[in-house]
Amino acid sequence: MDLMSRIQPALESQLLRAHSPSAPPRLLAAMRHAVFPGGARIRPQLCLAVARACGDSAPALSDAAAVAIELLHCASLVHDDMPAFDDADTRRGQPTVHRLYGEPLALLTGDALIVLAYQALAHGARLSPEHIDRLPGLLQLVCTGTGAPDGIVAGQAWECEPQVELAAYQRAKTGALFVASTCAGALAAGADPAGWRALGECLGEAYQVADDIRDVLMESEQLGKPAGQDATHHRPSAASDLGLGGAMDHFQALMSAAVDSVPAGPARRAMQALVLHEAARLIPPATSERIERERRRPTRVMHRPAVA
Amino acid sequence: MDLMSRIQPALESQLLRAHSPSAPPRLLAAMRHAVFPGGARIRPQLCLAVARACGDSAPALSDAAAVAIELLHCASLVHDDMPAFDDADTRRGQPTVHRLYGEPLALLTGDALIVLAYQALAHGARLSPEHIDRLPGLLQLVCTGTGAPDGIVAGQAWECEPQVELAAYQRAKTGALFVASTCAGALAAGADPAGWRALGECLGEAYQVADDIRDVLMESEQLGKPAGQDATHHRPSAASDLGLGGAMDHFQALMSAAVDSVPAGPARRAMQALVLHEAARLIPPATSERIERERRRPTRVMHRPAVA
Repeated sequence: MDLMSRIQPALESQLLRAHSPSAPPRLLAAMRHAVFPGGARIRPQLCLAVARACGDSAPALSDAAAVAIELLHCASLVHDDMPAFDDADTRRGQPTVHRLYGEPLALLTGDALIVLAYQALAHGARLSPEHIDRLPGLLQLVCTGTGAPDGIVAGQAWECEPQVELAAYQRAKTGALFVASTCAGALAAGADPAGWRALGECLGEAYQVADDIRDVLMESEQLGKPAGQDATHHRPSAASDLGLGGAMDHFQALMSAAVDSVPAGPARRAMQALVLHEAARLIPPATSERIERERRRPTRVMHRPAVA
Repeated sequence: MDLMSRIQPALESQLLRAHSPSAPPRLLAAMRHAVFPGGARIRPQLCLAVARACGDSAPALSDAAAVAIELLHCASLVHDDMPAFDDADTRRGQPTVHRLYGEPLALLTGDALIVLAYQALAHGARLSPEHIDRLPGLLQLVCTGTGAPDGIVAGQAWECEPQVELAAYQRAKTGALFVASTCAGALAAGADPAGWRALGECLGEAYQVADDIRDVLMESEQLGKPAGQDATHHRPSAASDLGLGGAMDHFQALMSAAVDSVPAGPARRAMQALVLHEAARLIPPATSERIERERRRPTRVMHRPAVA
């Protein structure tokens, strides 16, 4: 079964659990706008792919983990787009939530989506009473990927510090929820999450490096969101730290490490193929060729006058 | 054992779980500022009082529920104080989080506290493995009190709607987390939460009415936060809807209903005494006497000229 055809209905069902005639209608509309049509859904796909590789013994729990992680990702996008941060007009080619519904409701939409994510876990656990022992660990994994000290909220908070180290910032801002995705997928299926941690770490960092590269190379129209945001907001970026060629090398090394990290088992090949497919989606061949061409172009060398 | 001496250390321990040398230091400082020294801690006290009345068979789980609810309350205050809503300079006599740490970090502080609340439940469940079956219900109760359709976030979102009904607004904005407090206290102790719902509903509404009354009567200095906020922000308010005397009658009726609602059991008397004590704390005798005096004062009646 195609993973996306599991994820979209699961997200839809969870969103409907927030519905009621007693709810403020604009909040419900803003929550839906934040979640649908959605992006690549890479985190829930990863979560379900790992769960499947581990036997997927409690599908309702795997679905719940995948939905929770995607909702937390959507919540973080809504808050990151707000004027206090990126002040972005568009996201996924649509107006951002605060542009469409105003700042107060955007703030509350993010909050409501965070809560809805945890409600998904509660619901999944109720459907899987024989695997209830997995719930505290799942809850902890999802919290670790999201909050303080090292989750995506903490990662975003590094932007409010006077000094920040690029690796720690990226590990938290993007990596943490990828780690939660792989580890929660394993745990939901009853497997030890430890073996799947490295895959989440490598993919998370690779994803952030790819994002930095695209932010420099692509136009807003292709991205579906404003381009050049890292430079505009003076944010740490692999592309500015290492140059485009260096960032590309780093991306490829991370993707190789991701492929190597997949634990042994009957599903290893399929998972490795999925990682390679994702690599090509993140940095399309045309983009990597363009970076290669730029790199090979003879550069004008600045000669400093010899010191006498 | 005094409930406050259980709550403060439990909050402190949970806050320390967010600490790590790898965390952004200003985020940790802002989170602490949002939680300590704190207000009356009425919600966690209520949660623990109900748990105790029900036998408190899993104290780590009761503590976790109380901590989770207080952290969610603190998170909502941080976000409600922000410029998009109240734009308040002070809270509990201190500068608000966004005034001290800036808007971006205030937004993230609220998010991080929401996540920390759920982490408290995960932690409490790990300490009570023999009562793990209570976790999904607890998680659900806390989510219901917080998110959409009827939790405090939805309550706040009613302020972004063109039309709002006072009772629905207050039920969600304040009542929902009081209901979560009583019901979670019962469930954490293994009791049926249904019998404790009415107590939470009555206290929650009474608390909001008392807040409306104090917002009109008191000065900012006494409140520890800006006064006259309801009128400034054109918010629905029992004091403006019913007049001060009418609001006071409504408050007293709600408190009587709260006292009557306490389920039968060995701890009924003690719980009723706690409710009455809380009533006197919310509206001090001097305040209710002042409202009574105002009400008895002969009012100048405006005579409309008779239509010919």
